[in-house]
Amino acid sequence: MIIILKAGISRKQESAVLKEIRKRGYRPHVMRGVARTVIGAIGDELTHQSLETLAMMFPQLVESVMPVQKRYKLVSREAHPENSTVKVREHLIGGKKFQVMAGPCSVEGEKPLLKTAEAVKKAGATILRGGAFKPRTSPYEFQGLGERGLKMLAKARKETGLGIITELLSEQHAELVAEYTDIIQIGARNSQNFQLLIAAAKTGKPILLKRGLSMKIEEWLLAGEYILSNENAGLMFCERGIRTFETYTRNTLDLSTIPIIKKESHCPIVIDPSQGAGRADLVKSMCKGAVAMGADALLIEVHPNPAEAWSDGNQQVSLEIFAELMQELRPLILAAGRE
Amino acid sequence: MIIILKAGISRKQESAVLKEIRKRGYRPHVMRGVARTVIGAIGDELTHQSLETLAMMFPQLVESVMPVQKRYKLVSREAHPENSTVKVREHLIGGKKFQVMAGPCSVEGEKPLLKTAEAVKKAGATILRGGAFKPRTSPYEFQGLGERGLKMLAKARKETGLGIITELLSEQHAELVAEYTDIIQIGARNSQNFQLLIAAAKTGKPILLKRGLSMKIEEWLLAGEYILSNENAGLMFCERGIRTFETYTRNTLDLSTIPIIKKESHCPIVIDPSQGAGRADLVKSMCKGAVAMGADALLIEVHPNPAEAWSDGNQQVSLEIFAELMQELRPLILAAGRE
Amino acid sequence: MIIILKAGISRKQESAVLKEIRKRGYRPHVMRGVARTVIGAIGDELTHQSLETLAMMFPQLVESVMPVQKRYKLVSREAHPENSTVKVREHLIGGKKFQVMAGPCSVEGEKPLLKTAEAVKKAGATILRGGAFKPRTSPYEFQGLGERGLKMLAKARKETGLGIITELLSEQHAELVAEYTDIIQIGARNSQNFQLLIAAAKTGKPILLKRGLSMKIEEWLLAGEYILSNENAGLMFCERGIRTFETYTRNTLDLSTIPIIKKESHCPIVIDPSQGAGRADLVKSMCKGAVAMGADALLIEVHPNPAEAWSDGNQQVSLEIFAELMQELRPLILAAGRE
Amino acid sequence: MIIILKAGISRKQESAVLKEIRKRGYRPHVMRGVARTVIGAIGDELTHQSLETLAMMFPQLVESVMPVQKRYKLVSREAHPENSTVKVREHLIGGKKFQVMAGPCSVEGEKPLLKTAEAVKKAGATILRGGAFKPRTSPYEFQGLGERGLKMLAKARKETGLGIITELLSEQHAELVAEYTDIIQIGARNSQNFQLLIAAAKTGKPILLKRGLSMKIEEWLLAGEYILSNENAGLMFCERGIRTFETYTRNTLDLSTIPIIKKESHCPIVIDPSQGAGRADLVKSMCKGAVAMGADALLIEVHPNPAEAWSDGNQQVSLEIFAELMQELRPLILAAGRE
Repeated sequence: MIIILKAGISRKQESAVLKEIRKRGYRPHVMRGVARTVIGAIGDELTHQSLETLAMMFPQLVESVMPVQKRYKLVSREAHPENSTVKVREHLIGGKKFQVMAGPCSVEGEKPLLKTAEAVKKAGATILRGGAFKPRTSPYEFQGLGERGLKMLAKARKETGLGIITELLSEQHAELVAEYTDIIQIGARNSQNFQLLIAAAKTGKPILLKRGLSMKIEEWLLAGEYILSNENAGLMFCERGIRTFETYTRNTLDLSTIPIIKKESHCPIVIDPSQGAGRADLVKSMCKGAVAMGADALLIEVHPNPAEAWSDGNQQVSLEIFAELMQELRPLILAAGRE
Repeated sequence: MIIILKAGISRKQESAVLKEIRKRGYRPHVMRGVARTVIGAIGDELTHQSLETLAMMFPQLVESVMPVQKRYKLVSREAHPENSTVKVREHLIGGKKFQVMAGPCSVEGEKPLLKTAEAVKKAGATILRGGAFKPRTSPYEFQGLGERGLKMLAKARKETGLGIITELLSEQHAELVAEYTDIIQIGARNSQNFQLLIAAAKTGKPILLKRGLSMKIEEWLLAGEYILSNENAGLMFCERGIRTFETYTRNTLDLSTIPIIKKESHCPIVIDPSQGAGRADLVKSMCKGAVAMGADALLIEVHPNPAEAWSDGNQQVSLEIFAELMQELRPLILAAGRE
Repeated sequence: MIIILKAGISRKQESAVLKEIRKRGYRPHVMRGVARTVIGAIGDELTHQSLETLAMMFPQLVESVMPVQKRYKLVSREAHPENSTVKVREHLIGGKKFQVMAGPCSVEGEKPLLKTAEAVKKAGATILRGGAFKPRTSPYEFQGLGERGLKMLAKARKETGLGIITELLSEQHAELVAEYTDIIQIGARNSQNFQLLIAAAKTGKPILLKRGLSMKIEEWLLAGEYILSNENAGLMFCERGIRTFETYTRNTLDLSTIPIIKKESHCPIVIDPSQGAGRADLVKSMCKGAVAMGADALLIEVHPNPAEAWSDGNQQVSLEIFAELMQELRPLILAAGRE
Repeated sequence: MIIILKAGISRKQESAVLKEIRKRGYRPHVMRGVARTVIGAIGDELTHQSLETLAMMFPQLVESVMPVQKRYKLVSREAHPENSTVKVREHLIGGKKFQVMAGPCSVEGEKPLLKTAEAVKKAGATILRGGAFKPRTSPYEFQGLGERGLKMLAKARKETGLGIITELLSEQHAELVAEYTDIIQIGARNSQNFQLLIAAAKTGKPILLKRGLSMKIEEWLLAGEYILSNENAGLMFCERGIRTFETYTRNTLDLSTIPIIKKESHCPIVIDPSQGAGRADLVKSMCKGAVAMGADALLIEVHPNPAEAWSDGNQQVSLEIFAELMQELRPLILAAGRE
């Protein structure tokens, strides 16, 4: 920890601060600067009590306190310098091969799901997405088919061989959802619902952790730390747009998370352009950017008839547009050094 | 719903849109303007399928679609023109008397809790706050004393007569927490954890619903709608600061929520200045603003020794400062027409 | 400056960093911590070249660089521990007496301006606001009456004795505007138009500096530093709402700026609730909060017939509402210890 | 305009609103819905007085008022369905060929500028950037070499044949800057300094208009409208990152502006990844995304020795990195269908 003292402090006042630093188990190291005196407090910040409250304890003496160590460990690239990969059935996410997860926002019925599954597989996707439990802003909106939806996803997997990803909303459904799915998705609204993160981690299934609407990179990495520290190594980060002042798009997709997560962490990074913009007409362009910038996978909402979708119709692309998109991505995937 | 067509659409193209509007159960009403044709679609938006996907279904024809009705009902002032009040033991929140809830961020032990309870009661508070289950950004931080903490709160209530408010983090603890507390607090990170909202509502206890870090007013009202539509009338909204670009304070306390909630809803509004700024030195001023603007209650973090608090030491005020604050608030409470 | 090195650096690598620090005129001071080595670089940050580029010069060695000193001087409370006041004709802003500046968004004509001036004076305002040069988002909107508007303001001053505040938009108008006005207003969109700040400062007139739409406190203080360092001591800060994700209000009025500016600076702080919310129905409540929190003055948009205003009609209050407001503020002004 | 009335309004009350609508020159058209009555007001919104103040004029009757027409004309794709191009010496921006503008943040001297110019030209850039007038947050920071810097840019152009882009900060320098430069850059802080926009437009030089720190797409397009409506057709938009809650990067580069500007406008879109992230280590990745998403050009800060730059050293890349980057972009430029 670094403690910056206010200007014009006497040696006697200083010694009160030094005493407190020692009391908390750190070794203080004083540097007298031109305008300020700075104290370095030497000791492990992850195991000792924080010194951040010194500013409150000595409001007349201490200007500010700054931590030196990073707060996350297991998700950090320092802890694991190589890229880690997540295996989902026979597919590897985070490896050489670029992966695409696609399917409807909500599972609405067996037939349309199967039609979508076959179409996205044909176009090149390897994992089928679909919501069975849906978090909805209003209690009067469609909340998902629940277990019936999970069964439809399992059936689509059986018939097509695609892997399955679906969202977990409630600790009480962790076992149930894990029974059916290959990847558990944690949605943006639950990204700091730590009890849910722990429950999901304990199922042992791979976890796709979406970034919260106003989640800082550090908070996202720390939420991931909840997964890895609960002994589940199958963590993937998924950027899906943050909330800003802009109203043209529903969210602002932050593609800079791709190089940032690659730099700070060893875990794969997935981009969700559908939630990211909330507009189907921007999805293609977003996907191209994500591929070129080094994302490991895409998560795309696809619907056989978006205008009649039961939820988020404006952000789902049709089967035809999806097939086109996959064609257009091919040269970029190669140019980005992926397969 | 209002549908705005693009410029230069033929009558034949227009009729395709009209047909779809009728198919979804609305009666279309065409207005030909100077630059655009506008269609009013007459029908109940809360019971019919939304027309918002028309823009996607007819991307060449439809410019935009706008809803006319508000999405929330039970929380709205239209539904209940009088202020509603919430009874907590013998205290009424939302009535003539201004209420103060105060206590430590986390319950840390029986003795300091009791000391705090007695001090805040003496200064004029009627409800004791204290976290037993704590949501923490990092898995390596103190997570609360759990049921032991709840028992300490109950003991403090028994000895002082103060009501109790504490946070609920997990659906699985809803019964347990309800057994001990008088008010269930839903924290900012769980404000759109709808399963938790429903579980809390079903206990029948009064609910204090904090605003999420980047929650729009409409989303907050709709989250409240989850409480009222699950047959729990004891809803209070609590503003605790939103996330903005500013870094001087941890959050930006949005005091305009006081007149806004009073206008849109009948439910009480509570202000949390401690989370709101994340700085104890700003708490007094924030409280004064909240009182003058018509808040119904305050939720303040108070600790016998903030610099040694196990969590959020920088935002808790000391017992002395709290007593001073209560004195300073008195003339403002009277000037605002409260007791 | 504090330089944090990466983990696992050899002494030889370290010495390259030390050499560069010395080269730039700082004296390095090494502290070997548990997880990291930290270097304190001793020297005046305001006169030496910054060390912040060390992270780029040694990307494999340097984790981060943090400044120790504050970047602003003349506006800081350290530089001037007493509150400073600004004299506008016979009125003192920042003193014991609470001041109100009121008037139309735009000057629209002599008669309505005079009517407004008389009404706001009668209700207790001491300064008349009114825009003669208007910054408008679209080139097709009303841009103000220009010099004709300035002359009307001067006439209203002559007839009522009120002081005048009006906005300066262009360096080329600095002399012209200064000739007519008592206070020069710098608007939010020009808050980092440094050439305009310098031109305004050089007129010697008091300056009211609005906070930019997404301006951090530190940036605002530094913009104020442009005024004071150009030898104009008549600086007032004016909060008028920041841009956030919320869409219910046009801006989010950040009332926490009142205690913050009082803490960091000696200059007066003025609140503009009209721009702050963009909604006349919230103005009263905002004003009450501002008074209770210790603001020095209010800047309120008032119009004899808001619904017919040529600009921003939705945020201007009527003469009747303004008179009511002034009555309602009286007990709060007294409760806040002002006159 | 669309006017939504409150629930439960009598016909008599309604007629007062209708009368006012007619008075302002619109033809009202009433639609009685299930929950609300909606009035369509037919008339040209760009030439008639706005109806938005009806909500204030009749607060008990009018719920809200919504415009139907877009506020921008000349920049819109409706006005000019083909892409427009901007000619800078022999180079076309917005055409088939992808363009790169590169150079130092600030011009610091003749020698390093020339060295940079030669290096970026060799690597494939066609336009040289460099700041002679620098907007700085603090008055104590380096403000640029002024006209001396402009002369150095002109000399570098003469020796290399590169085009020149440099920032204009003051109306009073418009003629001077136009004399030396090929493109006038309007910076983010001046993006709504309308007097500067007009002065720049009147020089007749091509204008690169950066997006403001918290500028909505619509506001950006309207700022562009100030250029085109002052008879300067050489407008380019430049995204350089917006201000959000995230602190890992200095700004959040919003790459979704590429498809959005392409959809709404005919003008070229340029991406500035250096300001966008404020971190040189993210520049390469950002550039790749921009190319893949269809940007017309890049604006990149390059310095022979970034660690010793006089401004913004942390975001400038070295000559070597720039040459590498240009190599790596080549396959993506081809994959995106450009040259």
